[in-house]
This record gives sequence, C-alpha cells and structure tokens, in this order.
Amino acid sequence: MARHVYHATLRWSDMDAYQHINNVQYLRLLEEARVDMMFTLGQREGAKTLSEGVVIARHEIDYVRPMVWRPEPVRIETWVSKIGAARFTLGYEILDETVYARASSVLVPYSLDEQRPRRLNEDERRYLEGFLES
Amino acid sequence: MARHVYHATLRWSDMDAYQHINNVQYLRLLEEARVDMMFTLGQREGAKTLSEGVVIARHEIDYVRPMVWRPEPVRIETWVSKIGAARFTLGYEILDETVYARASSVLVPYSLDEQRPRRLNEDERRYLEGFLES
Amino acid sequence: MARHVYHATLRWSDMDAYQHINNVQYLRLLEEARVDMMFTLGQREGAKTLSEGVVIARHEIDYVRPMVWRPEPVRIETWVSKIGAARFTLGYEILDETVYARASSVLVPYSLDEQRPRRLNEDERRYLEGFLES
Amino acid sequence: MARHVYHATLRWSDMDAYQHINNVQYLRLLEEARVDMMFTLGQREGAKTLSEGVVIARHEIDYVRPMVWRPEPVRIETWVSKIGAARFTLGYEILDETVYARASSVLVPYSLDEQRPRRLNEDERRYLEGFLES
Repeated sequence: MARHVYHATLRWSDMDAYQHINNVQYLRLLEEARVDMMFTLGQREGAKTLSEGVVIARHEIDYVRPMVWRPEPVRIETWVSKIGAARFTLGYEILDETVYARASSVLVPYSLDEQRPRRLNEDERRYLEGFLES
Repeated sequence: MARHVYHATLRWSDMDAYQHINNVQYLRLLEEARVDMMFTLGQREGAKTLSEGVVIARHEIDYVRPMVWRPEPVRIETWVSKIGAARFTLGYEILDETVYARASSVLVPYSLDEQRPRRLNEDERRYLEGFLES
Repeated sequence: MARHVYHATLRWSDMDAYQHINNVQYLRLLEEARVDMMFTLGQREGAKTLSEGVVIARHEIDYVRPMVWRPEPVRIETWVSKIGAARFTLGYEILDETVYARASSVLVPYSLDEQRPRRLNEDERRYLEGFLES
Repeated sequence: MARHVYHATLRWSDMDAYQHINNVQYLRLLEEARVDMMFTLGQREGAKTLSEGVVIARHEIDYVRPMVWRPEPVRIETWVSKIGAARFTLGYEILDETVYARASSVLVPYSLDEQRPRRLNEDERRYLEGFLES
C-alpha cells in the first residue's frame, strides 16, 4: 500500500514566456511518472500487459503553486484511487517541501489486437491493488 | 452569446509512439485557442488586461475519441461557463464532424505588479459575458 | 523549379523563458514544412513512398534574427539543393519581410520492410527535381 | 581540459510516430546539457554572466544511429572547440556504448541591458578554456 515515487527532471524548456513551468508541462511530467509506474516497474513486477496499451479517458489537475525551473528533480507521488472492471483511476501529487499540483487520471486498458477497450486482467489488478489508497 | 472558434493546426510531432495525437497535446491545442480568445481577440475588443496575466487554476478534460494527425486544422469551440469575482471558467470542445474531447479550465486574473490574484475588472467581465453559456 | 511554400503557425508555447521563439522550435517548424512537402504534397503528386520512411541524417541551421510569437503564420520556403543516389539535401528559409533563419537537412530514404537505407526511386527523383535549385 | 558530462533523461514523449527519439528532440537534449554547463555549473564556478544571456547563432548535428526510449538516461559530453572575441563553439556527443549523434553550436554572449551581442569577459573565457579541445 505504498505510493509510487518518481523523481522527474524538469527541462529548462518546460518554462514558458512567463518564466514558470508551463501548466501543460505538468501533465507531461505526470506522463513520465505514469510511464515509470506502468511500463518500467509494471514490466518488472509481472503486469507487462499494462505497458502494451492503456488509453487516457480523463485528466483533472489543480495547480496549487507555480513551479520554477531548477536543476534538481521534483517528486511525483502516484497512487491508485479506484479500480473498476475495465478502468482505474490514478491520483498524483507533484511536490518537494510544498505541493505544486494535485491531479487524477482515468485509464482504460486497451487491446491493440482487437482495437477496443478491454477488462483488467488478474495480474494487472493485483499490481494496481499494491498502490490502492482510498 | 456566441462561442469563440479557433482552427488549430496539428503538428506531425503532436503524435506519440502510438501514432495518435498525444493526450497532453490536446491541452496544448486548448492553450492556442485560449491565447487566441484572451490575447489576440481580447486585445482587439478592449479587454487588453486579460493578456497581461491570467493564471490557470484547474483543468479537466475528457477524451472522447482518438485523433490522428492530418494537415487540416481541427476546430476548437470555447465558451465561458461561469464568471466569479476573481475567477472564471472556460468550456471547450475539440471537434470536426465528431467530438474528440471536452474540457474546462478555471482561470484567475493575476496582477503581475503585485504578484497576486486580482478581481476581474468591468471590461474583462463585459468581454467574457459575450461568451457566457449556462 | 519553384520553391515549396508552407505557412507555419507559431504556438505561444514555442516561446521560451526569454520570450523569443526557442531555437529548437525553429527545427520543429521546419519539420512541419518538410511534412507538408514530403507527405501531403508528395502523396498527391505521385511520390507516395517519400512519406513512408525518410530518415534525417543531418541538420544545419543559422539563426539570423530572433522571432517573437504572433498570431500570423510565418513563411517557410523549402527547396532541393542536391540529389544523390540514396540521399538528398533540402534548403530552407524562415521569413516574412525579413529572414529569421536559413537551414539545410540531409535526408535518406529508408525501407521500413528491410530496415535499412535505400536508393531514391524514379518517382521520388522526378518529384524532387521539381524543387531543385543550384 | 575535461569534457562536461550530463546525463539526460529521455521522456517517453520524445519519441515520435516512428517510435524513435524524434530528431528535433536531440537538440532539446543538447539544450539541457548546455544549460547544465552554462547555468548550473557556470554559476557555481564564477562565470555567472554566461547564464544571463547567450544567444544561439548556429547548430549543426549529424545523426549517427537511431535512439529508442528507455528509462536510463543518455550521456552527453560537451566541450569547447573554439573561443573567439565575441563567440564560442561547443562540440557535443550523445552516447552510451555507441554514439547516437555528434553536434556543434555557435554561441554569442548577449547583453540584455543593451540588447546586443557583447564580447566574452575574462571570467567567461577562463571558464570556457577549462573545456577547450582542439
């Protein structure tokens, strides 16, 4: 029941003309955390199929505090807030000593062969339950 | 009471390794529509101050259908769904014959001089009311 | 013997923290011009295979003048400066009344089936010769 | 006389629809290495002014081998190949066991106050000479 932790490197170009990390780039950083959780770690821990096709159905993000570029990475904590038959929800926080943003995403496993959404399999469910927080 | 219409050019690089327009890039396209509504049109119609500092407080987006790259632009309709004292909410649809995504953003006018949120002024309110849909 | 002309839309986010169009984004704009020349126009004019795999071997770019974001598109002129057996060179200028950058790219046709570089075919050569400038 | 070494994190989104790291993103990675060398390290070692305004005059890049996304960072080695009165040239290699690309950039110190190019000062010259390779 632990959160997944990813240290995301900011790029200088993530800043926009206002000299803050651009709001859209926050979602880019969340993508990196999600890729680490779904692909890199998921593959190692027996839920390989999560890396073969998961579609984003929805994002929500609340910007708490502006973020400025710095060479040190920022911490992204990710957890699972809901597991359904054919979808699941991730929660995220971008933070260091302070929280920069809170977000959530609804994800749908997708069969590339059949080109349509599919149900979660047992391995995936077990893997996701390890991050479940309610 | 008309929606703001912007025709957004897709870039080939908006596609990701799955050969669809990447989900984060949808928000990049919405940014372009918003910039057109706030900066370009806003300046012309007497609400100049909207281009001098508006902060994003929240985004929500529902992905309805995958979008593939094509040379023709995609249509983005934007409207105002709520006007408060010191914040307002935009609604959006990305579409052509079909809807690809629906989204909304909460925006907060920001004083660059005082480095803090500020109330909407009368010109801004009048401008935004022209796009109000409830 | 005409140059290919593409009108590239700048995105607000192409600016970096210095409030100029970021130098890397110039190459993103050139990619759009090249995609239009190779994919969109190439397909229409019988050189379809150019859109099925061309690899970049080299880029050179000289920055002549800083570019700031504006809603109006910028003009990109592209021509062919050299045609070899298995590679060709494009020249580009980004401009309106003034030139912002001059660039060139070496491109190599690539066989996706055989996963290796291949020679230009007759249709491709004929298509490229229409843009040849020496 | 040592090369500057930066370990650049690839982002999943650096891949394009061909499932390789997009050629333009190589220059984004070089930007990160340069920012580390000019801003982060430069500030620490007494050449602060390099972080206050350096303009890119030219890039050249040769793509040696396609790069695919992986969670491990890629190594970027940067050195100084030429120092002039008012410009200097960086050389780069992107590599791990194999070289993915070789590149060079011409940079021009820029006075933000006077809005024009300026000469290198002594601290900058000394700092850059530490990376000089001929």
